[in-house]
Amino acid sequence: MSDARARRSSGDRLLDILGVFTPGRSALTLTEIAGHTGLPLTTAHRLVATLARWGALERGDDGVYHVGLRLWEVASLAPRGVGLREAAMPFLEDLYEATHENVQLAVRDGMDAVYVERIFGRSAVGVHTRVGARWPLHATGVGLVLLAYGPAELQEAYCARPLERFTRFTVTDPGELRRVLAQVRLENCAVSSRQITEDAVSVAAPVRDTKGAVTAAVSLVVPAAGTDPRRLIAAVRFAGLGIGRALGGDAGGGPDDA
Amino acid sequence: MSDARARRSSGDRLLDILGVFTPGRSALTLTEIAGHTGLPLTTAHRLVATLARWGALERGDDGVYHVGLRLWEVASLAPRGVGLREAAMPFLEDLYEATHENVQLAVRDGMDAVYVERIFGRSAVGVHTRVGARWPLHATGVGLVLLAYGPAELQEAYCARPLERFTRFTVTDPGELRRVLAQVRLENCAVSSRQITEDAVSVAAPVRDTKGAVTAAVSLVVPAAGTDPRRLIAAVRFAGLGIGRALGGDAGGGPDDA
Repeated sequence: MSDARARRSSGDRLLDILGVFTPGRSALTLTEIAGHTGLPLTTAHRLVATLARWGALERGDDGVYHVGLRLWEVASLAPRGVGLREAAMPFLEDLYEATHENVQLAVRDGMDAVYVERIFGRSAVGVHTRVGARWPLHATGVGLVLLAYGPAELQEAYCARPLERFTRFTVTDPGELRRVLAQVRLENCAVSSRQITEDAVSVAAPVRDTKGAVTAAVSLVVPAAGTDPRRLIAAVRFAGLGIGRALGGDAGGGPDDA
Repeated sequence: MSDARARRSSGDRLLDILGVFTPGRSALTLTEIAGHTGLPLTTAHRLVATLARWGALERGDDGVYHVGLRLWEVASLAPRGVGLREAAMPFLEDLYEATHENVQLAVRDGMDAVYVERIFGRSAVGVHTRVGARWPLHATGVGLVLLAYGPAELQEAYCARPLERFTRFTVTDPGELRRVLAQVRLENCAVSSRQITEDAVSVAAPVRDTKGAVTAAVSLVVPAAGTDPRRLIAAVRFAGLGIGRALGGDAGGGPDDA
């Protein structure tokens, strides 16, 4: 065990345990938790018991642990998670009802877009996101908006990294990405065509707080074939404006939320 | 400080800090966190720093802490929170689009119903819930369903407690509540009229897992005046069946979720 590991407090190790739960690994036995954290089984046992007693983890009949309802209740207070989606939901519903396409809402965390809400379209293309999922910023509509309006240092750091390719249409050249970001700022929206999958186009617009800072992005994801994505820009921008107004307190979370 | 308090581990105290964040208290200074937990300021400072480093708390420009995005990401793996609502969302949307009334989804935690999803109706009555909120079981439609299909010991314990009154229509007599619960089981749905507010009726139906156990409840909340709530029962039952099927893996989270 390294010195750094040995110095980690009980609180750090408790959070390490929460951190091993991921979308691909959402149900784990005690032995698996110990293995993924590198903790001795007895330590893992004690900390898991602490988490279960509080309600951060729940143990199934099969002895498998998953994330518990109480943690979810506390997490629902995160202003950038459920708080944001509560304010946004009426506008996302309107966008969905107007289009019946995939609707998404995302925030930036470091160099990723994190999806905080998604409404499935019916006839719509496959969308490879889930609530809580992360995607790199350069290839999705919401990501391009969040990157284009992010700090200049972020944009420099982002363009200096290798840009992952998802399809033959993904922009992976830093110079081209800089031009795309300038275009996003010029048009106050992003159109990302076939960059994640070859069958989908996403149209995204910013959500601004009362000071004008971009705090989130909203998008529609539609089939690339037979759609003119530019016809959707006004609706997506409109939704972004409405959500920003709701966050600022000018509009409530809904007509009944007084 | 009591012996019990003194014996609490660093992990327990870390969770105590998360526990002080509530819907009415979602942004707190370090001093407030220390006050609510009863921890010395230096201890609170160290634990809050641990939580902030991991991303469970985020510190605003104003020095105020709120729940962080990373906690929300991990919590989104809770099968009874976001996991359930992901499976349920297409059916809740259909129910909303068919009725434009308030749609709610709840699970039971102890003696409370916890709301995991809600879609606002437009012309609809005020609904005093939010995602993550709790209500006692005896007065709401979802609560009556969750209580009626809960363990017999739960029903006994619940009826032995004082039943809180919210309006003059709230059932507060244990004998009458038992009759109501029997009726819920007979009809496989609950109609709760004017029991929380005098202007609203809720119609709720169970969501069953593959073994037939009731794991959640779905409801519509509509204005009490001029509505025949019984006309909504079939739609709500239908939504409950669909969500149960989706949870069992027979149906996906949506047509695109393959």
